[in-house]
Amino acid sequence: MEFYANKKLPNGIFFGNTSMISNRELLSNIELIIFDFDGVFTDNAVYVTQDGAESVRCWRSDGLGLEKLKKIGVKLHILSSEVNPVVSMRSAKLNIGCSQGVEDKAEAVLELCRNYLVNPQRTMFVGNDTNDIPAFQAVGLAVGVADSHEDINSHVMFKTEKKGGMGAVREICDIVLRAKIE
Amino acid sequence: MEFYANKKLPNGIFFGNTSMISNRELLSNIELIIFDFDGVFTDNAVYVTQDGAESVRCWRSDGLGLEKLKKIGVKLHILSSEVNPVVSMRSAKLNIGCSQGVEDKAEAVLELCRNYLVNPQRTMFVGNDTNDIPAFQAVGLAVGVADSHEDINSHVMFKTEKKGGMGAVREICDIVLRAKIE
Amino acid sequence: MEFYANKKLPNGIFFGNTSMISNRELLSNIELIIFDFDGVFTDNAVYVTQDGAESVRCWRSDGLGLEKLKKIGVKLHILSSEVNPVVSMRSAKLNIGCSQGVEDKAEAVLELCRNYLVNPQRTMFVGNDTNDIPAFQAVGLAVGVADSHEDINSHVMFKTEKKGGMGAVREICDIVLRAKIE
Amino acid sequence: MEFYANKKLPNGIFFGNTSMISNRELLSNIELIIFDFDGVFTDNAVYVTQDGAESVRCWRSDGLGLEKLKKIGVKLHILSSEVNPVVSMRSAKLNIGCSQGVEDKAEAVLELCRNYLVNPQRTMFVGNDTNDIPAFQAVGLAVGVADSHEDINSHVMFKTEKKGGMGAVREICDIVLRAKIE
Repeated sequence: MEFYANKKLPNGIFFGNTSMISNRELLSNIELIIFDFDGVFTDNAVYVTQDGAESVRCWRSDGLGLEKLKKIGVKLHILSSEVNPVVSMRSAKLNIGCSQGVEDKAEAVLELCRNYLVNPQRTMFVGNDTNDIPAFQAVGLAVGVADSHEDINSHVMFKTEKKGGMGAVREICDIVLRAKIE
Repeated sequence: MEFYANKKLPNGIFFGNTSMISNRELLSNIELIIFDFDGVFTDNAVYVTQDGAESVRCWRSDGLGLEKLKKIGVKLHILSSEVNPVVSMRSAKLNIGCSQGVEDKAEAVLELCRNYLVNPQRTMFVGNDTNDIPAFQAVGLAVGVADSHEDINSHVMFKTEKKGGMGAVREICDIVLRAKIE
Repeated sequence: MEFYANKKLPNGIFFGNTSMISNRELLSNIELIIFDFDGVFTDNAVYVTQDGAESVRCWRSDGLGLEKLKKIGVKLHILSSEVNPVVSMRSAKLNIGCSQGVEDKAEAVLELCRNYLVNPQRTMFVGNDTNDIPAFQAVGLAVGVADSHEDINSHVMFKTEKKGGMGAVREICDIVLRAKIE
Repeated sequence: MEFYANKKLPNGIFFGNTSMISNRELLSNIELIIFDFDGVFTDNAVYVTQDGAESVRCWRSDGLGLEKLKKIGVKLHILSSEVNPVVSMRSAKLNIGCSQGVEDKAEAVLELCRNYLVNPQRTMFVGNDTNDIPAFQAVGLAVGVADSHEDINSHVMFKTEKKGGMGAVREICDIVLRAKIE
């Protein structure tokens, strides 16, 4: 099977445009999934208290899907442009590596690929906003959550049915798992 | 009245497929209801603060329904795979027994039946995700909340109209109460 | 104008069944509004932290409507069956009287009417659940929020378009204000 | 290009009624945007804890849009009638000026225009409730969020597609940015 270099694809190529066979092949070859945090693991809300402390709203069932992927050897990482303790706390709870304060997401993605010894073409990036576009272009499989900013539409190959923080991460886990074990 | 052994049922047998009589009989014979916590008593969200503390969102009106069931002698228990203080706090407020850190939910359900001296066939389990499937198979009446993971569909006999943390528990209380007192 | 004694009305008499004139008359004669708290001022959710502390979600714009009613002399009171600091905090912020730990809501409503020197027929009660039914029956105008428990439908004369904690209280304020000043 | 004085417009003049050219001209001439806080930066909810502390729910992606506007020189300010630490905290995080405890919003808007040296006709005000109407009338471009109180409809020229605290601020940033750079 041949991987498409996403950055060479014309805009607007979505999963629906390719055959089921190639979708499954694309997915079954994924070895590393890098997730944006806000809007992907959360519903993109931030709760602000009177003393400026922030909280976020995550989805309990993400953990079950991520565990299953880890068991079959898929590598997982969270990449966030902001430095925020809630990201550290959530990634620690989920037992996933996490990088924060990332200015150049494309460079960060490529460095993670080198560290995890995974070909960027066998890497999926999951994001939701325009600052994820460089990261989308750096990987073999660019995925947006259902409620992404519309300006990313032409930069992803696939959008989830579930919204960020409402099952999107679990949906991705289920799809990759199914492609790999069936 | 004869109880169906759920695990022997072909997939996809929902309440709608059986007669109202048998539904009422099934429900009116329930003596113990065991609830999963996250996604059933909550909307499956977890709120994470900067210091890693977690909060959940529950439904006020669940309490009123649970009280009515307790008054007519129905036994109630919360079963959670995760150990989390919020589960203890909510079950204490609702004055319901609670088991946490459960790895094998089927075994835990059967042990609860023995402790409460209730036949598993007269026990209802309410869940929302794939890790509840063994528990669904261990009881006489398996119920999923409206927004359950789709992979449980073939393992439950009934799905609520209301979502978890949005009235699902109260709906179950109302249905069982009606079947038992009418 | 003659007030209908709500408890003598056959079930299912809604505002839509009466003429606009009588609606406006009913509303313009209201001198006291008693509100249930959970599900009316809130979306019926309770947020539970790891140490058991509870929070609720209220609607900012309720305050503006309540202020306008107070300015034209309408009396306002919150009545809650549960004793909970969040009720005290919210009613203090809104500068509204508040009674908690009320077991018999009908008796409490009638006592409030005596204290405020208002005829129960010129009193509105706003609720959302079955434990509000005695209070609905004690007043001249029984109102449920849009997302009330369905079992109250035959006990209210009017349901709001907006949900509890999502504009229902403000909607009631606007309607009463319009009836009184037009 | 000529600016319309909003207060001289008959009610109900929305953007859809004017040509795209004039919309773009109106938008591209905006030099200052003044935002109401509750219901615009938030979903109009306030979370109340047992000790009376308040939290609000904001939208992560607002920051990215506001940053882009600041880079091209658009001035931004938050104006809130209530004095609340959460407003200070959120505006500090977004690095935007903020005025609180404002009784007369129209006067406050005109004073901000003087301070920022911007013609009120080149100023946009974004609000969601009836207490914003004087401010809407003081500026050249009055904008309401999608879920505004219906009584403001005749006082705004434009309503966002996204709700407050759910992308409305970002949507406004995107529209102004597009009008200014295209």
